[in-house]
Amino acid sequence: HPVVAEMLAVPFPPFCVALGSLGLVCVAFVSAWCQHWRGGFALDGSTRTFNWHPVLMVTAMVVLYGAAALVYRLPPAWRGPKLPWKVLHGSLTLVIFILTVLGLVAVFHFHNTNGTPNMYSLHSWLGLATVLLFSCQWVVGFSTFLLPWAPTWLRAVYKPLHVFFGSSILVLALASCVSGINEKLFFSLKNGTMEYKLLPPEAVFANTLGLLLVLFGVLVLAALARPSWKRPDADAPDSCQ
Amino acid sequence: HPVVAEMLAVPFPPFCVALGSLGLVCVAFVSAWCQHWRGGFALDGSTRTFNWHPVLMVTAMVVLYGAAALVYRLPPAWRGPKLPWKVLHGSLTLVIFILTVLGLVAVFHFHNTNGTPNMYSLHSWLGLATVLLFSCQWVVGFSTFLLPWAPTWLRAVYKPLHVFFGSSILVLALASCVSGINEKLFFSLKNGTMEYKLLPPEAVFANTLGLLLVLFGVLVLAALARPSWKRPDADAPDSCQ
Repeated sequence: HPVVAEMLAVPFPPFCVALGSLGLVCVAFVSAWCQHWRGGFALDGSTRTFNWHPVLMVTAMVVLYGAAALVYRLPPAWRGPKLPWKVLHGSLTLVIFILTVLGLVAVFHFHNTNGTPNMYSLHSWLGLATVLLFSCQWVVGFSTFLLPWAPTWLRAVYKPLHVFFGSSILVLALASCVSGINEKLFFSLKNGTMEYKLLPPEAVFANTLGLLLVLFGVLVLAALARPSWKRPDADAPDSCQ
Repeated sequence: HPVVAEMLAVPFPPFCVALGSLGLVCVAFVSAWCQHWRGGFALDGSTRTFNWHPVLMVTAMVVLYGAAALVYRLPPAWRGPKLPWKVLHGSLTLVIFILTVLGLVAVFHFHNTNGTPNMYSLHSWLGLATVLLFSCQWVVGFSTFLLPWAPTWLRAVYKPLHVFFGSSILVLALASCVSGINEKLFFSLKNGTMEYKLLPPEAVFANTLGLLLVLFGVLVLAALARPSWKRPDADAPDSCQ
């Protein structure tokens, strides 16, 4: 049915604007949560240091990660040399890596200052696995696609793996964020008047943040999977520049 | 490089056996956790009633869901009439729906018996959103693909949406399971000798369950995305039988 088909045939640029706005809303939500309800930001090892952790992780591993993953879907990236877009993708993911390491430093510094053990919860196990996979993906991606000496067969074999791990790491990041927001709310809202189970405004706000993050991530996965938004030569093997 | 390419070109059946074994390990892990550490199963409204919740949700919304999603990847489904495979897919997802409703009944019955509010945590919000999306997907899928009166254009328009929502619901189910296991461990392990942060054997076991579930889900998504495992006519519009 042509009318329905046309309604679903959204081009990438307006989708990208809507997705970018949703990403900004996610960053604004996590920042407002930490600023308004959790006491703001500092570097003193208190919970105000911890607050950098959710802000940096959400901004880097979900919102910027979505942007970096979708770089090759921008119509200008379809034409001309691919190298500038590869450099942009590699640079964005390097920024994500740096912000992610700072996000880990924030939570380890907070735990160590307060004598709390590190790395016991499922959130921490899954989150660290996500960051380690992401780091491996960056190193192998850089060595294979940006350094000039990787042979064509290796680029051809690794490219679908890189694409697959790219989506998988986003799935892991979403599960890490949801479990982290959930456990932070149980930690923070346990005194008598503001218990999580009484659903105070902070809980509604942070639960909404969790749902918005999942929506953002799923839309990124949808955009990545959509055949008509891929470069026409997406299935061609990568070549040395 | 032919050797590397051949190593990666695993056919679907052996992958399916390995994935099925991993799924059985997940069901065994969640059952053993609830049986050995959480007191087993009952219908009395106690935590032994709650224990049905993780077992039913993991079994239905992750393991059986993966099986139902991959039905069309079985080589016998590539040939001959599609209707029996559609009936199998619809029946499996109906069983999943029934088990999921029972899993929700278990947790609501436990909460109501103990005066605990329902639906306050991010886990509960995301989990309910997952189940509601899954229910809509079942009803719309059944009406469009199994009932005979949906026109060809509607089947053609809805099919990629059904595929996309199918993968997305699995992503939501994984995030729901991870946040649920995480919060259950914080609830259960809060007395002095067995605190979650001291990482007792139960915590290691249930954290491992969470990672295995994510691995299972990501492998299902990988199998779904792999072009060479799709039916040769996968992009053809569905037709009335």
